[in-house]
Amino acid sequence: MYTIREERVSNKPKDNREGAVTSRRRFLQAGIAGGATLATAAMARAEGDPLITEVQDWNRYLGAGVDETPYGMPSEYEAHVVRRDVPWLTADPVSSVNFTPLHELDGIITPNGLCFERHHGGTAIIDPADHRLMINGLVDTPLVFTMQDLMRFPRENRVYFLECAANSGMEWRGSQLNGCQFTHGMVHCVVYTGVPLKHLLAEAGVKTSGKWVLAEGADASAMTRSIPMEKALDDCLVAFKMNGEALRPEQGYPVRLVVPGWEGNMWVKWLRRLEVGDQPWAQREETSKYTDLLANGKARRHTWVMDVKSVITSPSPQAPITHGRGQTVISGLAWSGYGTIKRVDVSLDGGRNWHEARIDGPSLPKALHRFYYDFNWDGSELLLQSRAIDERGYIQPTKNELRAARGENSIYHNNGIQTWYVQADGVVENVEVS
Amino acid sequence: MYTIREERVSNKPKDNREGAVTSRRRFLQAGIAGGATLATAAMARAEGDPLITEVQDWNRYLGAGVDETPYGMPSEYEAHVVRRDVPWLTADPVSSVNFTPLHELDGIITPNGLCFERHHGGTAIIDPADHRLMINGLVDTPLVFTMQDLMRFPRENRVYFLECAANSGMEWRGSQLNGCQFTHGMVHCVVYTGVPLKHLLAEAGVKTSGKWVLAEGADASAMTRSIPMEKALDDCLVAFKMNGEALRPEQGYPVRLVVPGWEGNMWVKWLRRLEVGDQPWAQREETSKYTDLLANGKARRHTWVMDVKSVITSPSPQAPITHGRGQTVISGLAWSGYGTIKRVDVSLDGGRNWHEARIDGPSLPKALHRFYYDFNWDGSELLLQSRAIDERGYIQPTKNELRAARGENSIYHNNGIQTWYVQADGVVENVEVS
Repeated sequence: MYTIREERVSNKPKDNREGAVTSRRRFLQAGIAGGATLATAAMARAEGDPLITEVQDWNRYLGAGVDETPYGMPSEYEAHVVRRDVPWLTADPVSSVNFTPLHELDGIITPNGLCFERHHGGTAIIDPADHRLMINGLVDTPLVFTMQDLMRFPRENRVYFLECAANSGMEWRGSQLNGCQFTHGMVHCVVYTGVPLKHLLAEAGVKTSGKWVLAEGADASAMTRSIPMEKALDDCLVAFKMNGEALRPEQGYPVRLVVPGWEGNMWVKWLRRLEVGDQPWAQREETSKYTDLLANGKARRHTWVMDVKSVITSPSPQAPITHGRGQTVISGLAWSGYGTIKRVDVSLDGGRNWHEARIDGPSLPKALHRFYYDFNWDGSELLLQSRAIDERGYIQPTKNELRAARGENSIYHNNGIQTWYVQADGVVENVEVS
Repeated sequence: MYTIREERVSNKPKDNREGAVTSRRRFLQAGIAGGATLATAAMARAEGDPLITEVQDWNRYLGAGVDETPYGMPSEYEAHVVRRDVPWLTADPVSSVNFTPLHELDGIITPNGLCFERHHGGTAIIDPADHRLMINGLVDTPLVFTMQDLMRFPRENRVYFLECAANSGMEWRGSQLNGCQFTHGMVHCVVYTGVPLKHLLAEAGVKTSGKWVLAEGADASAMTRSIPMEKALDDCLVAFKMNGEALRPEQGYPVRLVVPGWEGNMWVKWLRRLEVGDQPWAQREETSKYTDLLANGKARRHTWVMDVKSVITSPSPQAPITHGRGQTVISGLAWSGYGTIKRVDVSLDGGRNWHEARIDGPSLPKALHRFYYDFNWDGSELLLQSRAIDERGYIQPTKNELRAARGENSIYHNNGIQTWYVQADGVVENVEVS
């Protein structure tokens, strides 16, 4: 930012734009902003910045018309804002994960093109006209629905985060991945449109012995998970839209299960079957996977709810401070599978002192919350942390508190406090503080 | 939807999936759903639907991996869900409009790729490193901001609709365009992240004589609009993100003005200058355009607020009823530049009888609201209408009430009640009822 000394200010309409711009050039001189509240080393700039004194090409020549991009895409200058995978994490990209670029995003909605992917058999490509959803098992009337059938039931719209149970999993054994895209990027948050699962179950008529629902996907992995009836009848949705438009293929097009606040693996994509039973099925993805192996060799199972968690998204290793000292925005995300976030605290010194952050934007249950902490950076080293508190009053734990309780065998359900080390030059690294 | 007579239901894990699917075939028989509450002619289907009795390709073969689409796109089966322009409306696509496909969308968030475009000189393509925002005029310290400078101010996240003043403009003289994409598609609704304009004006220091702000764009049309200081200091944002990611080029990348509830033309894109003055500038876009010419030859000006409005998006001419009689979802949008929507009514008979609709999803001020009316269609002809009532208690008027008050010269600010004629075969047409 720099100041301008203007010798003449015209409030009149400009009849000759070229002339107006040309004549304005001599009125522009850069200087130091006297008394400005934004204290920044970037304020002083060479006078006569040609980017404001000269007419630029985009101001001189007509741009693209409205017939050129029926479906719009991001600017070419945002080509670095993409999902990224980590090839060494998994053997094969069809049973792997990529990560949401949280460090480049803001607000609480994740754009559809950037929602992380987790597949167990690759992205199934399905013509919605060929898709069927069956309800069978302990029901009065087994049913098969087409997509058009589903569209005839009453719909709801809800904003929910979806977090993979393995998000931050590599952090159990210390800081290994240098960027919040990789440590925390298995989360996204969109508006879902769908039919409450309870309506479909009511249509089939659940027998009194029906206590569980098995959700099965139509992809090559035929993902299967057991869901207790109480949750199925509470807030689960059979969703066909995200952020207003059809689900994306990698998110289960044409239809997925939404299990608010619970681990992402249960949100079965390409949903083709719901079986009602009297006990859980103990499928592979709820026994050998998605259970938490403790230090004593026993495993926690049915650990469905994603607990209260937060992370600072900027500054972070992929988003260093490049503007030097002075006014600085710390931005981050917080969420809880138990409801809304009541408070977020930020520490600049590795957890010794805490400052209440500002939660901004809609505060919706089981949705991402955006927080900010605006402060004046003096250029000294920082150990940034955030700590979320949800509507139950539950406080996000440290990683060491989690390790003391659960050991280090698991990769799931790490909601520990993350630390970023900000160096004097603004470079940021993933570290741990004891 | 059809029913299944299952002779055996297995709740046990399936060790041999191929075998399980094959053996399940003989248990499936289609029939009429007895006692099902979804009364639909589509229920009876031929027995043994191969789409559920046979293993499909997408269940047999691995799909695409997580390394294939760094930025995701919609399914190939959604290729019809696009913005569309109407070539005969304007002479040149660089000074024209395309329309949001409202009939294909749901919920309250418009995905970025489908937000309608309105340009006066085409889409400016700007490298954010080369963009500057100047504040000059009646201020203590004229300033120039880089994008990095803007990122250092406290940010906010807000969900707002943006509606072009000319939305539904062709309807002043009767029904001419057969689809809500064309009659109402100059509206979208996203989450904006930006700096409150009041922070930037405070940084420059507005002189006591400063009562107006001129916003100027960096595109080839150098769009310029006058905004009263009271609005500028109220809820305007200088926004750099939409739905979490950077603004799209056609929406003003890297920075646009957000003027909540007010006509879209004032939301200057590619924002490069804010001049503070003591009176409005009377620029072209607020004199010969974007004023409302009355029958007596006088013009209403400064008609900034977009008044309470609604439209049924499905069924509509581009979204006919294809499922026959029975349970049917009517879905639509309502909004008001004055705040939230308190109630929406739906009529099936051209406004003689009204039924209260269900507003679903977040209800946020100056944002789109989604409403539904679920009913049993008996196959008779319908004249569908919706009527919104906002938090002031103001009721959306009929088109004839608007014409009586303002004549038919204008194309702007038509918030009249829309009528869709549903024929017995489910085909829908844009009509007027007197």
